[in-house]
Amino acid sequence: MSAAVATKQKASREDSLVASTSIKTEQLHLTRRSPAYWRVTIDNPPINVMGPQMVRDFQQIIRAIEVDEQVKVVVFDSAVDGYFLNHSDFTAKLEDLTSMPPGPTGLPPWPDFLVRLSRAPVASIALIRGRATGNGSEITLACDMSFASREKTILSQWEVGVGMVAGGGPMARLPQLIGRNRALEVLLSLEDLSGETAEAYGYVNRALPDAELDAFVEALATRIAQFDKWGIGQTKRLVNTSLPPDVELGAGWDACIASLGRPAAQNGIKALIARGFHKPGDVENRLAYYLGQIPH
Amino acid sequence: MSAAVATKQKASREDSLVASTSIKTEQLHLTRRSPAYWRVTIDNPPINVMGPQMVRDFQQIIRAIEVDEQVKVVVFDSAVDGYFLNHSDFTAKLEDLTSMPPGPTGLPPWPDFLVRLSRAPVASIALIRGRATGNGSEITLACDMSFASREKTILSQWEVGVGMVAGGGPMARLPQLIGRNRALEVLLSLEDLSGETAEAYGYVNRALPDAELDAFVEALATRIAQFDKWGIGQTKRLVNTSLPPDVELGAGWDACIASLGRPAAQNGIKALIARGFHKPGDVENRLAYYLGQIPH
Amino acid sequence: MSAAVATKQKASREDSLVASTSIKTEQLHLTRRSPAYWRVTIDNPPINVMGPQMVRDFQQIIRAIEVDEQVKVVVFDSAVDGYFLNHSDFTAKLEDLTSMPPGPTGLPPWPDFLVRLSRAPVASIALIRGRATGNGSEITLACDMSFASREKTILSQWEVGVGMVAGGGPMARLPQLIGRNRALEVLLSLEDLSGETAEAYGYVNRALPDAELDAFVEALATRIAQFDKWGIGQTKRLVNTSLPPDVELGAGWDACIASLGRPAAQNGIKALIARGFHKPGDVENRLAYYLGQIPH
Repeated sequence: MSAAVATKQKASREDSLVASTSIKTEQLHLTRRSPAYWRVTIDNPPINVMGPQMVRDFQQIIRAIEVDEQVKVVVFDSAVDGYFLNHSDFTAKLEDLTSMPPGPTGLPPWPDFLVRLSRAPVASIALIRGRATGNGSEITLACDMSFASREKTILSQWEVGVGMVAGGGPMARLPQLIGRNRALEVLLSLEDLSGETAEAYGYVNRALPDAELDAFVEALATRIAQFDKWGIGQTKRLVNTSLPPDVELGAGWDACIASLGRPAAQNGIKALIARGFHKPGDVENRLAYYLGQIPH
Repeated sequence: MSAAVATKQKASREDSLVASTSIKTEQLHLTRRSPAYWRVTIDNPPINVMGPQMVRDFQQIIRAIEVDEQVKVVVFDSAVDGYFLNHSDFTAKLEDLTSMPPGPTGLPPWPDFLVRLSRAPVASIALIRGRATGNGSEITLACDMSFASREKTILSQWEVGVGMVAGGGPMARLPQLIGRNRALEVLLSLEDLSGETAEAYGYVNRALPDAELDAFVEALATRIAQFDKWGIGQTKRLVNTSLPPDVELGAGWDACIASLGRPAAQNGIKALIARGFHKPGDVENRLAYYLGQIPH
Repeated sequence: MSAAVATKQKASREDSLVASTSIKTEQLHLTRRSPAYWRVTIDNPPINVMGPQMVRDFQQIIRAIEVDEQVKVVVFDSAVDGYFLNHSDFTAKLEDLTSMPPGPTGLPPWPDFLVRLSRAPVASIALIRGRATGNGSEITLACDMSFASREKTILSQWEVGVGMVAGGGPMARLPQLIGRNRALEVLLSLEDLSGETAEAYGYVNRALPDAELDAFVEALATRIAQFDKWGIGQTKRLVNTSLPPDVELGAGWDACIASLGRPAAQNGIKALIARGFHKPGDVENRLAYYLGQIPH
């Protein structure tokens, strides 16, 4: 097969991906509300954890965003009540994650997705309702904007509480966004932040009354979807000089994987699961509290 | 004429510029309230747009600031009711702007003025009352401090709404000041921000009740004008390590000029003018709204 | 004495330093509430100025923190009513400060302490009650987190008001934390900021009601002290990519020392002392006001 034919076939596969009105990968739904305005809905009930399959799905989504010539706005939301996007799936085999080939940036698939999302020439918006912990905070930080339910948002990084290091870049991104002092508070206190505090810290753009959140994001996304794609992409390209170097997200990922091999993390996660972590209930609802209760 | 004589004559012209109590360039008034405390009043009624003449005036002002040995504080304000400093003058010929020689930084005159203002060894303060859109936002970001009328301020970048890219550096400066997420909200939502929101975001230092704004800025400027010029200049020099590289403002300018040559911008500006843009009235008053109404 | 013996003796001294439950250097008390949670209490009545002895004490403290294998949290507080940590001691001989050998970073002892504190693999917390001016602001900025009494905090940099430049790095650190515009307001207006304004600006993490401050910090420190030291250290290491280069703190120190040799600073400090500066009373209580009253 000649290179030209291969390229054409690849383009054709991508075209068909692009042409359909919706893509349902296993745990993410991509819905095209219009050619310019897409929604990606995270749907892994009951508590929206992220395992290897969801990482593969995010890879598929970002490829679709990058090759499309019409999309200007992508909103990320959740179909699971009480959870935007949660910590990783600790019932999955770690090897299923670590054996995935790196993405085009050379980074492993999760940080690869995050840095490509920040660089994609479209406006990305996190619509946050429910718990956004670990990966949920990390995708919020990778999105261009984020709007949170005032009553129903919990934002947090929780990793240090079980002897881990966060894997999706909050050490690189939070200090630029909310200042080094509040970044270290988030990363070392592990508090469950309310929408109101997240807004006060600048962690999210705005926290809105829950009843107004959907209409606000819909209006904003529809508005931006009218504008010229070239202008959006050029403006974002020039803003992106402020992004941390990709290598910092790689270093965070490496520290995260290293932490998982240590007894502190293995014991911490085990102790938390013994109390009810990883299924609906009080530990997931009040994770910050329980991180202070397990033996360390 | 020998180089020495030319230098002397140039110095003499600058001395006389410096010695006078006030300079009235065509659209900017420089008033020396004291040798240490200057005001620059923007005055291009009815809506304070910025065309090539005002850019030339800003060049003259920054030269006067740089060569003066006594000035410590420069306040920028407006003589035009309802407008601090507005978008560019689209009735002017673009060539009149693009044909100007670059300034001493090598950048075109508007970004050249902005980066020199940020580096000048004096405290620069924007006193904002009325609309500060496009150029008005950009000079705010270039000033060292900014204080805004709580009731009468509208801060915005509007360019993407007509297919343009902003030309005076907000992509380089806003992420550092208000975080990447809110910077992209400003640059892609194009909302008319109130003084209150601008303060909450850190876009301006403070929003004050309109009745208190003038006295507050007067007291602050008078206070700083007492202090030692060397100490002010040294302190600012060390703060300025946090400035974005000048080359980023150049890249933004280039993208802006490129955007003006595209049909999207030409059609966008035309559609807006057809609705009443560029003269006093509802489109100028509610620009964010109308940016969502024109065809794209 | 052979190098090996010398090293062993040095290690032994440091071990004993580490093993004791508390260290009382002359003006700083180090108390180990547990092996993992230390307090450093600043105690130089009546107004907690910092002279050469306190700088030596801070050097001893940072060495103890760095070599200890168990400490995870260090809280800095004050034993002096009304003062967290104040400006420098102008009754001390400048030579006693400038003749100290540089620390391990190559920087003079005060900036050396500050950059090592920011890099130490423990969580450092400033508990601020009373005036935190000059050095007190600088240690706040070097700590990982800071919590302030809402009613009893005064945060400020005051140096430019007497023709000086700040010596402990606020020019390098404040723009990243609170934005360039508010950093220059702090550094050039010299205002006495309340806890409430400091929180609104992000200068401190939070301002709490005075009656709740101690319990809040105690709970947070106790909480973090439970977590895995490796995870804390790795997380902080990755956050620290956002620190300004050490060389910027060195440049600020050099400008500070240079400023002290100029008549402006010598006259300014003299004029302030003539009004009651440097002892308990109205000038220390309302320093910002008096900085505007002395002749310049």
